[in-house]
Amino acid sequence: MTRFELNILGCGSATCTTRHMPSCQVLNVRDRLMMIDCGEGAQLSMRHMRLKFSRLNHIFVSHLHGDHCFGLPGLLSTLALTGRTGTVTVHIFKDGAEWLRRTMDRFCGDRPFRLEYNVIGTQRAVVYEDSGVVVTAFPLQHRVPCVGFRIDEKPKLRHIVPEALAEHGVPRHAINGLRQGLDWTAPDGHVVACELLTTPPDPSRSYAYCSDTRPSERVLQAIEGVDWLYHEATYGDECERQAHNRYHSTAREAARAAREAGAGNLIIGHYSSRYDDVTPLLEQARQEFASTMLADERLTVDLNTDLPRAN
Amino acid sequence: MTRFELNILGCGSATCTTRHMPSCQVLNVRDRLMMIDCGEGAQLSMRHMRLKFSRLNHIFVSHLHGDHCFGLPGLLSTLALTGRTGTVTVHIFKDGAEWLRRTMDRFCGDRPFRLEYNVIGTQRAVVYEDSGVVVTAFPLQHRVPCVGFRIDEKPKLRHIVPEALAEHGVPRHAINGLRQGLDWTAPDGHVVACELLTTPPDPSRSYAYCSDTRPSERVLQAIEGVDWLYHEATYGDECERQAHNRYHSTAREAARAAREAGAGNLIIGHYSSRYDDVTPLLEQARQEFASTMLADERLTVDLNTDLPRAN
Repeated sequence: MTRFELNILGCGSATCTTRHMPSCQVLNVRDRLMMIDCGEGAQLSMRHMRLKFSRLNHIFVSHLHGDHCFGLPGLLSTLALTGRTGTVTVHIFKDGAEWLRRTMDRFCGDRPFRLEYNVIGTQRAVVYEDSGVVVTAFPLQHRVPCVGFRIDEKPKLRHIVPEALAEHGVPRHAINGLRQGLDWTAPDGHVVACELLTTPPDPSRSYAYCSDTRPSERVLQAIEGVDWLYHEATYGDECERQAHNRYHSTAREAARAAREAGAGNLIIGHYSSRYDDVTPLLEQARQEFASTMLADERLTVDLNTDLPRAN
Repeated sequence: MTRFELNILGCGSATCTTRHMPSCQVLNVRDRLMMIDCGEGAQLSMRHMRLKFSRLNHIFVSHLHGDHCFGLPGLLSTLALTGRTGTVTVHIFKDGAEWLRRTMDRFCGDRPFRLEYNVIGTQRAVVYEDSGVVVTAFPLQHRVPCVGFRIDEKPKLRHIVPEALAEHGVPRHAINGLRQGLDWTAPDGHVVACELLTTPPDPSRSYAYCSDTRPSERVLQAIEGVDWLYHEATYGDECERQAHNRYHSTAREAARAAREAGAGNLIIGHYSSRYDDVTPLLEQARQEFASTMLADERLTVDLNTDLPRAN
């Protein structure tokens, strides 16, 4: 399987505690790193988790609250200090791009890499695409403009069966076509079906990130059928009204969203600073959706596998 | 003795490592907190060291490199979130005040406390004064405009000897004057010398902070006779040329500065990321100035006492 792995660098909410760092995740897609949100201390957490700065090319920012973006100046300055080259693209709202551009020009104007800004909007739209994945932003329902991100792996290549190739005398230059699902036509014109020479590709997996949001029907549509969902669960049942008023979700609401969207697995996080112990949030979520786990700092989740199902 | 205590929150240099945090210190003067520099993660370190946000009123920024000020937006936002009231004053260069004002207006415009900026210059000048201390900024010699800070306690009050007051029939309302060193004149006109009624005040202590600097004669004048000196020691002997070229000091140069300025005690820090082990820096410094110690994160130093002297 190709690597599709989530690293959690921070899963606290806005008020700083000693238990959690502000929001930050790094998705490892075939050893290319994509950061989602960049709270203060993100660069330090990358060091602690041994995630390589040189492999980080894209940073996606969900909204312009400090606990989701105050780590950007420090991280980007450190990239400059460590001699990073190439291009780093920050996908961010217009206001955020302007703030970051000013900040970087003031503090780190002389940098050896190219810093690009992809100004994103609040509507559902593909914001990034490469040979392996498509990243779609979609609107969340928060106090300020805010988007979630959904990362879908593209269809993968079929697996070659070397013995079958040898048996049919298939030359090496035909392999690319076979892996893409094309049949092979021999020099004498006879056709060997792709299925005889290859096995099916690995399944394409998907991940969605909902940073700060009230439960919302539009969110459900955007995250439909996702294999893994990270959903904020700032509060427990006892703070349902507060969650609503502050445009956040309870753990139970996060789990309902996972169930109603047909998600495969759920990670909850963005815990309020009021909780010393978040296991009650896990219990409340699991009452609605069994395949739920707690986010925690320095946790790595293999998104190619599922949580063990209860019997 | 009144409290005069240094808390070290970060003593690394610009490149982020897992061993050290970027520059930040909190001076506790009679339970009022003054922060000196505010690298990324300062608010988290304050939490770890149980330093109260409510007691922090002044932040002094030595220069506009990110490792000395990128913690400001997060710290000030957290003050707002935790309902901090009153006034917080940031003493900072003009460019820094403009950047911080824009950042705070963008991300934290609605705050319950008053945020004031005291624009400081690069010349030697008193930048703050209250009933207990005088804070003087003085120029360092770095790649960009940069100042150190010297904090001098004001003369303290004499100690009353209650038995002597009773013996001479001195009324309570005379105590303030006696503590300030005035003699007491009895109703019948006879004068009792202050020295008979009081004992001398505790000594006034002083502390100086030299964040990023080459050795410099002007610095020596500014830190002359200071009780405790924090001096950057980015490099060891083997990098003396690099230290010079990058406008930093070696540990040995820091120690020479302490000796030549007649400082009482020296703390070295601002270690380059190249050093996994900084004990060689300590050894090199102690060859020049014995009363040297290493800075480290979460260390608290009582500035009222001196390091043990070698016999």
